[in-house]
Amino acid sequence: MKTLDLANLTIERAARALRDREVSPLELTDAYLDRIERLNPRVNAYLTVTAERARDDARRATAELAAGKVRGPLHGIPVAHKDLYETAGIRTTGGSKIHANHVPSADCTVARKLREAGTVLLGKLNTHEYAYGVTTNNPHYGPTRNPWDLERIPAGSSGGSGAAIAAGLATATTGSDTGGSIRMPASLCGVVGLKPTYGRVSKAGVLPLSYRFDHTGPITRTVMDAGLMFNAMAGYDPADPSSLRVPVEDVTAGIDTGIRGLRVGVPRGYFFDQLEDDVAAALEAAIAGLQRLGADIRDIEIPGVLEGVWGVFGFVHAEALEIHSQAIEHRLQDFGDDLRAILGSPGPDAATLMLGLRYCDALTVAMRTALEQVDVLITPTTPITAPRIGQDIVRCGDSEEPVLHAMIRCTAPFNATHLPALSVPCGFTPGGLPVGLQIAGRPFDEATVLRVGYAYEQATGWHLRTPVL
Amino acid sequence: MKTLDLANLTIERAARALRDREVSPLELTDAYLDRIERLNPRVNAYLTVTAERARDDARRATAELAAGKVRGPLHGIPVAHKDLYETAGIRTTGGSKIHANHVPSADCTVARKLREAGTVLLGKLNTHEYAYGVTTNNPHYGPTRNPWDLERIPAGSSGGSGAAIAAGLATATTGSDTGGSIRMPASLCGVVGLKPTYGRVSKAGVLPLSYRFDHTGPITRTVMDAGLMFNAMAGYDPADPSSLRVPVEDVTAGIDTGIRGLRVGVPRGYFFDQLEDDVAAALEAAIAGLQRLGADIRDIEIPGVLEGVWGVFGFVHAEALEIHSQAIEHRLQDFGDDLRAILGSPGPDAATLMLGLRYCDALTVAMRTALEQVDVLITPTTPITAPRIGQDIVRCGDSEEPVLHAMIRCTAPFNATHLPALSVPCGFTPGGLPVGLQIAGRPFDEATVLRVGYAYEQATGWHLRTPVL
Repeated sequence: MKTLDLANLTIERAARALRDREVSPLELTDAYLDRIERLNPRVNAYLTVTAERARDDARRATAELAAGKVRGPLHGIPVAHKDLYETAGIRTTGGSKIHANHVPSADCTVARKLREAGTVLLGKLNTHEYAYGVTTNNPHYGPTRNPWDLERIPAGSSGGSGAAIAAGLATATTGSDTGGSIRMPASLCGVVGLKPTYGRVSKAGVLPLSYRFDHTGPITRTVMDAGLMFNAMAGYDPADPSSLRVPVEDVTAGIDTGIRGLRVGVPRGYFFDQLEDDVAAALEAAIAGLQRLGADIRDIEIPGVLEGVWGVFGFVHAEALEIHSQAIEHRLQDFGDDLRAILGSPGPDAATLMLGLRYCDALTVAMRTALEQVDVLITPTTPITAPRIGQDIVRCGDSEEPVLHAMIRCTAPFNATHLPALSVPCGFTPGGLPVGLQIAGRPFDEATVLRVGYAYEQATGWHLRTPVL
Repeated sequence: MKTLDLANLTIERAARALRDREVSPLELTDAYLDRIERLNPRVNAYLTVTAERARDDARRATAELAAGKVRGPLHGIPVAHKDLYETAGIRTTGGSKIHANHVPSADCTVARKLREAGTVLLGKLNTHEYAYGVTTNNPHYGPTRNPWDLERIPAGSSGGSGAAIAAGLATATTGSDTGGSIRMPASLCGVVGLKPTYGRVSKAGVLPLSYRFDHTGPITRTVMDAGLMFNAMAGYDPADPSSLRVPVEDVTAGIDTGIRGLRVGVPRGYFFDQLEDDVAAALEAAIAGLQRLGADIRDIEIPGVLEGVWGVFGFVHAEALEIHSQAIEHRLQDFGDDLRAILGSPGPDAATLMLGLRYCDALTVAMRTALEQVDVLITPTTPITAPRIGQDIVRCGDSEEPVLHAMIRCTAPFNATHLPALSVPCGFTPGGLPVGLQIAGRPFDEATVLRVGYAYEQATGWHLRTPVL
């Protein structure tokens, strides 16, 4: 174990150590459980640590690997799930008081697939209440803290998933993303988050925020790890009505073949407006870096982004009212302040909802048309770095705006349009806070998105930095 | 031309005749134009006959084929489009008074693709006003008449498309299907209609009824022809926000390989309730016929169908209110009576809409789960045969119900669930009215659906019967 630095451990490195018998799954799991015990009280990434289940999983993996039965690249790898992911026999709170004692009888599809891939389940991760919100989580279980500065938020709603990776409390985690909730924590925590194309990864058994805009995906330390997790998570699931019955290729094949000649679109309008100075500087450096790697950088215009984001906001509100209608009627007082305020207000009317969908449709056409001219789009993941816990207003460029609005500004357009989008570390502010680069691509083309992220990551090495805890 | 019987001409047969120089595209086109001139006054399938354009197309195809340039199996084939399909320089009424003088500047994607495939455009086909409704069309342009009985409806909304094929007024036509509008005319007119999987065939440039439930597809004389048309129409289109970027295989490859061992599910609950006696008898004969062909027939239960159809109804209403909001405000008196009544009534509220979508989701899961146990589902296309023009109420089994409700009962579930579904001729009543068999399959598995339809069609030969006109 001496040679394995948990604070910077990747699936790739762990798998090699397991294969070479440098460490056993049980030893690796115990090391994480020790680290969680030591650090989680400060970070508050885990709501539930499933130590017994983890050791059972690890013993099974140890025996299987010793017998030469290798399930694949995730065999023996310790993971943790956002606490929206239903897990058989393990409470799944959704970050709520209302589901505080909810113990599902079955795994959600992704938890089942990752179990079958041989992973070890360390526990369940903090989130905003029912994934609604991106600023300070959580009114019932306390805020998750950003490992780079414990007075700051990790963003949300998959804040526990992002913080757990940054703090070295799991090798890989899962998240969900309705307006950016995988990519925003990746950005603010200096790790990697992948929102796959809508319909690629099953949502069956994951507590919903919005059926139309929710996506499930991984949060990891590296781009290769995101690809390995995606490979295990993706695929048609009849139990998820939005799941698409399309083939899934191995997205790590060719991930290291570089980006020479690849057309990279930079949509400066909207996506590069009102950035924090350090974010703007990091992005310009990233663009120059991609160019040095051989990318063909092109300015590109995408109209109607703001309208599309507005459409997402309204529709998510209406869906939440329907999803929580029973609880709104009978247990409104059991919601936290933020959610109670949202769910206590009437949603948009039908005409407004339909108008919002048309805006999303128009943005989808604009984005897809742009992606006929370029292979990927790059933007900041978040226009800002981590705000302080409790901070509501942020200064962006020359104006102030609510943290919520600033935070989802660049990510939600890819929920509106269902396109795959990845956040990778893009350097640090002088104060040591991470910046995120977002790479988005064509429908079902996660492979190209990951290839760009991999090339950038390997060239910059930003993923090698870890917070001091 | 003596050997070519237009009343029963298929794409396959026409293509062979063109290839063998038995006939030229121009001769074939002129023969159709003559037949349209003679019969359309009685059938009223065409709203616009584009004789000049057709002869231009035919001359080009004649020259290309003479020079040995073959664009594919549709080269020189005369087709016509439902008048929702925008066509450059040709008025596209949508069956409305409001769009009576609408002359688009560009072809819709499907019209463009079929033009590029070398087809000849004969004209534009009658439809319900903006495709809303399935009983008697059209308040502005008069009813299309069913070629099997001119006092009866061809169903809708693609009634002109179905009647044109049955009457031998085009080799192939296009339609659109929101609750059954391709398959119902196929059923009542004794021809073949394919609603592909949602997202397979572009809707860009086709006047919308419902963004969520509209599908575009072909109406043809045979199953093979439906496959040939599908091949030319399908494929990713960035301009359609619902288009899916997935590969499209040649669905006619293997179409004739039979159905021995194929698992065919018969969902008797709901789909076989309250059928016209002749329809019920035809369906039992079809089930026995499929069994003789080697199919493994299985009863299967699908819960929640009625609720899913209810969800479609409400959502389509809300979408129509949004789509026509300008016209509702300024030109309500220019809608026909039926549509004015619908558009003058308020749509469902947001909570009701969301509940309807959840019902559609639940039905999608139920259908997809059933389709893990069987390869296809078969049902009647319509529980009834063609009602009389103007008839509002129909007797089904032992009860009466509105024609509209009876008509979409078996088709709309496949709009709710976005699954591919085909209608093929399934015999005739003693009075000589056609019955339709519906075959539905897994997402993106049009090939299997067509294979079943082809086997049944070839074994029964129902497609060889034509009406006397």
